[in-house]
Amino acid sequence: MTSNRETQIAADPRLPLIRITREFDAPPEKVFRAHADPDLLARWLGPSGHEMKIDHYDCRTGGSFRYLSTSDGTEFGFHGCFHEVRPAQLIVQTFTFEGEPDGVALERLLFEDLGGGRTRLTATSLCESFEGRDAWLVSGMQEGVREGYLRLDDLLAG
Amino acid sequence: MTSNRETQIAADPRLPLIRITREFDAPPEKVFRAHADPDLLARWLGPSGHEMKIDHYDCRTGGSFRYLSTSDGTEFGFHGCFHEVRPAQLIVQTFTFEGEPDGVALERLLFEDLGGGRTRLTATSLCESFEGRDAWLVSGMQEGVREGYLRLDDLLAG
Repeated sequence: MTSNRETQIAADPRLPLIRITREFDAPPEKVFRAHADPDLLARWLGPSGHEMKIDHYDCRTGGSFRYLSTSDGTEFGFHGCFHEVRPAQLIVQTFTFEGEPDGVALERLLFEDLGGGRTRLTATSLCESFEGRDAWLVSGMQEGVREGYLRLDDLLAG
Repeated sequence: MTSNRETQIAADPRLPLIRITREFDAPPEKVFRAHADPDLLARWLGPSGHEMKIDHYDCRTGGSFRYLSTSDGTEFGFHGCFHEVRPAQLIVQTFTFEGEPDGVALERLLFEDLGGGRTRLTATSLCESFEGRDAWLVSGMQEGVREGYLRLDDLLAG
């Protein structure tokens, strides 16, 4: 059985939160590794036409990260810390887009085993305001998320 | 002029957030140091009658912490990571009480210079649900926060 490859992106009605749900044709260990290993992450994350450059990426409880996404010579920086990492199960991290250096989101990535070598990823971003959350939703990042997951499909199939 | 030593603790009406405000008779550098230096922190944080034991406390951008608060032989563990630390200005960190290991809050401590050697500290905790936030408000932790700040007054005066 092939997974449903539609990426669902929803705004929570009560909380300043975005919930992204996506299924993958690979077991949780493999989908997790594609998020935890910076060499793999750099191969799929981000919008089409952007190049990923890892500054540092230490995906363990208490670690931290910073990476740059480059497009047409413009660099977009992102950084945060890993609050908790449970291999093949969960990543809880903070996230700042350096274009808005005072904004911080609390992110939770849950890797659910669907059986049959399939995984459901649920990624939530809790923002500090409804305004910040809604700005993200209209920023074009939704398309970047979908494009990244299509490249992740290819990576997982390889 | 002496600061208003009342600790204000308020629930946000729109967000699952607690906002704590407190003034101190010490400059921002000194109030910040009492939060950033684990030896100083252990001398004032927490409710009366609890003993603080630092497991690790690396208060810098990308660092992490864990400490234990002990009362009558019972240990309460807390841990998180430091998303951003701007000396004498700002600490953004995550926070988990290990009695509820799946709960995470995003915390922001702002140190404001009031002039005349005084500081206003504004500490916000963004919780993942209104239920989690409201449980904190009725947990007795409010009294522990007030007791800790009274000890911090003494430490800053010493």
